[in-house]
Order: sequence, then structure tokens, then C-alpha cells
Amino acid sequence: MKISLIGGGSWGTTLAQVLTDNGHETLVYDINESAVNKINHGEHPFFSNHIEGIKATTNLKEALAFSDYLVLAVPTKFMRQSLKEINLNADRKLHFINVSKGIEPETLKRVSEIVDEEINPEWLGAYAVLTGPSHAEEVIERKLTVLTAASFTPWFAKSVQSLFSNQKYLRIYTSDDLIGCEVGGAIKNAIAIVSGMMTGYGLGENARAALITRGILEIVRVVVYMGGKKETAFGLTGIGDLIVTASSLNSRNFNAGLRIGQGIPVDQVLNESKMVVEGVRAIAAAKDLCRSSNIELPIIEVAYDVIFNHMTVEDAITILLTRELKAETIE
Amino acid sequence: MKISLIGGGSWGTTLAQVLTDNGHETLVYDINESAVNKINHGEHPFFSNHIEGIKATTNLKEALAFSDYLVLAVPTKFMRQSLKEINLNADRKLHFINVSKGIEPETLKRVSEIVDEEINPEWLGAYAVLTGPSHAEEVIERKLTVLTAASFTPWFAKSVQSLFSNQKYLRIYTSDDLIGCEVGGAIKNAIAIVSGMMTGYGLGENARAALITRGILEIVRVVVYMGGKKETAFGLTGIGDLIVTASSLNSRNFNAGLRIGQGIPVDQVLNESKMVVEGVRAIAAAKDLCRSSNIELPIIEVAYDVIFNHMTVEDAITILLTRELKAETIE
Repeated sequence: MKISLIGGGSWGTTLAQVLTDNGHETLVYDINESAVNKINHGEHPFFSNHIEGIKATTNLKEALAFSDYLVLAVPTKFMRQSLKEINLNADRKLHFINVSKGIEPETLKRVSEIVDEEINPEWLGAYAVLTGPSHAEEVIERKLTVLTAASFTPWFAKSVQSLFSNQKYLRIYTSDDLIGCEVGGAIKNAIAIVSGMMTGYGLGENARAALITRGILEIVRVVVYMGGKKETAFGLTGIGDLIVTASSLNSRNFNAGLRIGQGIPVDQVLNESKMVVEGVRAIAAAKDLCRSSNIELPIIEVAYDVIFNHMTVEDAITILLTRELKAETIE
Repeated sequence: MKISLIGGGSWGTTLAQVLTDNGHETLVYDINESAVNKINHGEHPFFSNHIEGIKATTNLKEALAFSDYLVLAVPTKFMRQSLKEINLNADRKLHFINVSKGIEPETLKRVSEIVDEEINPEWLGAYAVLTGPSHAEEVIERKLTVLTAASFTPWFAKSVQSLFSNQKYLRIYTSDDLIGCEVGGAIKNAIAIVSGMMTGYGLGENARAALITRGILEIVRVVVYMGGKKETAFGLTGIGDLIVTASSLNSRNFNAGLRIGQGIPVDQVLNESKMVVEGVRAIAAAKDLCRSSNIELPIIEVAYDVIFNHMTVEDAITILLTRELKAETIE
């Protein structure tokens, strides 16, 4: 089958390699000419791995003509603009597979909602999100990875499952909880930044495990508030993705937190990061949710104060540690 | 307050230090004279840390006379025998705080059930378990750690919480789900061994996150089957403890699995381990549960076959990877 990928970043190019491995034809669209040239010469634009058989283009019309299946692999910050361009250039029904994780802080909208707003119903076919614990660095090396394909349209979840899964290194579950999968994937980045902060500050594995455990409850609360299922947050797209993100130097969110925890000023850390730190946007979005609802997100609240209000990491940890001792609640 | 600790191993001695930090008087009982001498000279018997103000004895009667509060810190393999001796030497009601994690494979009994069987009702006061994500190596260095104290007796859970918690590095929640906390702490060791196997075999962080996520579901199933609450398995004593155990060289369970995954024969790994690998007993116990019930524990089943039936780690991973693709279920 033919599949187009919108965005030739680290994850988009890696998924193109997966699809090629599975016998599909892929075309990657990116505005960055250097990335496109690299891909067309068999080089991954972000990793040192050789990639084979993937074509790339800077011409969006060509990418849209290539296939009815579009993989959306652009940072959520640029998602709305990309969708506007897709909508302008579309000429028939397209099916969307989003692989980016984030919530738009200004609107608190999920990517599927942005797609609904920006793509003319005439061009809008099925929609799914493919998400779960996945460092691109490992997938490109064909190391065993397990993801979830979620859609309100059962046949499309199964279609995404069969496109991407293989017997060698990629196993994919399906889910009908699109909202839960989208929200979990976004909010876990917020907790991952705090995990990095704590590690940078010098705390150890015990504290990190406690943070991740308490952090998953904040993911649950946001997932449920936004209309997703609690169980989803406890699966691959919530806790699974949080585990892989919240303790690895391969995660740009964890890394950003790590440097903040080491005492480097927040502005400097964020300005120096070449890639978008999605978790900062997730923290802002979740903090907004706190303001407009009754959900309790103590970890995200202190993260917000560190990022936006000059709170020190030490004070943030003290606040979390000295909250009233009580019964452990999982809700 | 005065507190006696039964067992001067790495965790027992470390908790004695916590109690001393909190202003309590502690006496550690151990049959090992060398460990007792070290403690009395301010040395931790397992770590290079200096410890202060802890007394130790090889005389059980002295330990029982010292306090009505007994911390049980012996490996579960030796728990029944230790309790028999305590029962023989008791002369009044004692309160028990168990800090060991395991299920007796021959009987599938939890530690609290073994206490009920071995301690005369006349001497049996309140009972609690103190458990959660905690490498002793970090607690002895006073690094932030969060645990749960669980008991059917609310005042005693609170009493344990106030004995062990402090504002500096140890935060403790309470729970009334004694069964869930006991079972979660035992079964997570089984999953941690498999995590080690996968890492030793060369799989990466994506695979480990997926294993931990799917592993927690097996913990949930066993917890619920044995009468505990599902939510407990999703808290500190289940997923939290699994996270800290399933990815750290500080865990003897993870380490044993790691060496098996690297191709070292199972017998050799288990014989060379100086400390008891609790997870092997947990795997045997959980496998027995599979046989006598309908609960599905695919990870634990292949772990059993690797440990006891000469299955290769490669075959075990292939079996897990090639199970039928389906919807992700969290139950």
C-alpha cells in the first residue's frame, strides 16, 4: 500500500522506515530541504542509521496525491498550520493517522479536534492516533516496541494496526478510546519534565518511581475530565509512555527537566532545545484545566510554577513532600 | 519510642536508621554475629554507610523484651521459622510491622496469614505491612522515598505512618488494603525478573515500558484474585514498586533476570546469588495460581518456563510477541 507522511522529523522518518519494512511504499513530506535530501539519499535526518527505500518531497501536493492515508508527524505547535495547508490542497477524502502528542494550550484542544476544525468534512475520512512507549532511537534499530492504535472507527484502528505491526519488532494493540489515548500521550510529557527536574536536583530512583506513580493519577484525572477512560491511562498510552519518557535521556522532555533541576535557568534550557519540548505546552494546558475545574494536579501545579513563575526546584519538591500525610487514593 | 527489628539485613538495618533519625530507640536482632557486631560498631552490614545509634543483639529474648513493636525484616523464605521462634519466646501482646515481600509458594500464603498461623492469638496484637518503591541503597543515603503502610487496623496504619515518616526524606501514605499491598509487593518481583531477562537479551526501553505496563495487569489479576483491590495494584505498592524494581541494577531480582538473559544458566545464577531472589518464589506461586484458576498471566507463565523448564529467553520473548494481536484490555 502507499502511505504519505507529513513531517520528516525523527519520529516521522522512523515510522516511514517501519512501513517500508512492512512492504508499503512511503513518501515523506517536509518543508526542510536538507531533511528531504537526506532521506532521498538513504540517510535518517536525525539519527546515524541508514534508511532504505523511502522517498521524500518538499511538495505537499505530491504527498497528497501519493496516498489517501496521511500520517501526521509534525509537532503539535505546527499542527494547525499544517492542517490548513493540507485542507487547501486536498481534492478528495483522506484518512488521518496522528502520531504527535500534545494539547493546544490556547484552546485545550486535542489533535483530533483540531483536525475536525481545520479539515473540510468533504476531505475528512477516518481518523486514528498511533501512540505508546516509543523512543524513535530504538524503533529505527528495530528494537521490540508495543503501541496502541486508537480510533472511534473500529475498521480504521484495525487498518492502522495491520499497516504498522510486524512479527519482528512492532506489536500494536487497538483501542476505541481515542480521547484517552490522545490526552494520556500529551500529559505524560508534563510529568516527564518534573521527573527530569527531580533527577537533575539529585533525587534517586525511589523518588522517581513515586513521582511516576502519583503522576499517573494526574494523567488519569485529566483523561477522565476530558472524556477519556480511566483504564486507558493505566495502559500503554498512559503509564507505558510515561515510564519510557520519565526516566530516559532519549526524551527531550526529561532532558529539559534534568537541566532545569541542575540549576540552568528555565529560559536558557527552552531556548537551547532545538526540538519542541511538548511537555511545557502540556503543563500550561493542564494548569489551565486546574483553574477551570476541580481536578487536583499537585505535581503539574508546581511544575507550572517552576517553568513560568520562577519557583526553585527545591521549593517545588518541598511542597510535594510536605503535603498533609493521608491515605493513598487512586482516583 | 522503642522498636525492635527482626533481621539485620540490608533493609532491616536501613529502617533501623530511619527510626533512629526520627528519634526512636531501636534494637536489631539477627542470628548473624558478624552483622550484629558491625551494627554495634556503627557500620551497616551491607553498605559502606556509617550508621549511628543503633543497637543490635543475637539474643531474641532481649529483642522481644525491648519493645511491643516488632519490625519483621527477614526474607519470606525464613519468615515461618522466625515467627515460630518469636512465638516460643513471647510473653505478652506484640504488634507486627512486616517489611518483607513474598508469597509462600508451597501454601500461596501471604506473610500476614503466616503470622496468623504461627503466632498464638494471646501474643498477636495489630499487624501492618510497610511497602512501596524503596531501594535500601537510597533510603540509607536519606534520598526521598514514599511508602505505604497498610493494615486492617486503622489506628495501627496511622501509628506506622507516624513512626517512620519524617519531613526530610520519608513520606508515608496509609491504606486499608492489606491484601492488595502484600500481594503487589510479592508479584512485582516476578515481573522484575522478566524485565531483567529482556534487558540482558538486548531489548531496550520501549520493550521494558511495554512489559511493565502489561506486567502490572498480571499483578492486578493476582491481587484481585487473592482478595485485594485493583486500585492498590495501580498505586505505590504495585506499579510504583514494579517501576523501581524492574529497571535497576540495585534490584537483585532484575539482576538475576539480567544474567539469565545474557545466557548464563539459570541454576548458576540462582546459586551464585548471595541474597534470596524473592521473585523466583513469586513466579512459582503465581504459576500455581494459574493452574488452579482462570486468570491469565502470560508473562509469568513464560518466566516459569525459563526458570524451571529450560525455555530460552529468545523463545519466551517470541511467545509474548507473537500472541494474537487484539484490543488492549486493562482488566
